[in-house]
Amino acid sequence: MLLVTVYLLSMKAKVYVTLKPSVLDPQGKAIQHSVELLGFQGIADVRQGKYFEIALDQSLDPKGVEEAAERIAREVLANPVIEDYRVEIEE
Amino acid sequence: MLLVTVYLLSMKAKVYVTLKPSVLDPQGKAIQHSVELLGFQGIADVRQGKYFEIALDQSLDPKGVEEAAERIAREVLANPVIEDYRVEIEE
Repeated sequence: MLLVTVYLLSMKAKVYVTLKPSVLDPQGKAIQHSVELLGFQGIADVRQGKYFEIALDQSLDPKGVEEAAERIAREVLANPVIEDYRVEIEE
Repeated sequence: MLLVTVYLLSMKAKVYVTLKPSVLDPQGKAIQHSVELLGFQGIADVRQGKYFEIALDQSLDPKGVEEAAERIAREVLANPVIEDYRVEIEE
């Protein structure tokens, strides 16, 4: 008997979306306040962002994957007026 | 005239919180659906997580920073029942 295993090498894009440094982050401030109330000291600042993992098929070539992830980040996941984003490709 | 610049070397902890793989992510599915409606193809899966940047004072030693960030992630930022977290320290 012959067992054939096919690995579908799907690629993963990681997208990090953060508020621009000049934009106030009340959610981060609330977390910082809670953390301090819980007794943690030496916290200078907390900022919250978003993190997305996008799994892409192998139907796209590596360059296509990078372009697609970049476009999705810019057009769907981030609001470029107030947010910065960073895309990382993992194979 | 003598200008003295003091750099306060604050350390930054980055915390990534993601849903455990076995937990359904309806928000991620909604994003995947929207992205497909917008014409992007070859998207196998989208999962949304959270991302936090914690700036810590230099009053803590490097080991203390790591421990503090780990505790904040476990006790405040993530729900260990349904979420995984990862902590990175950046100097």
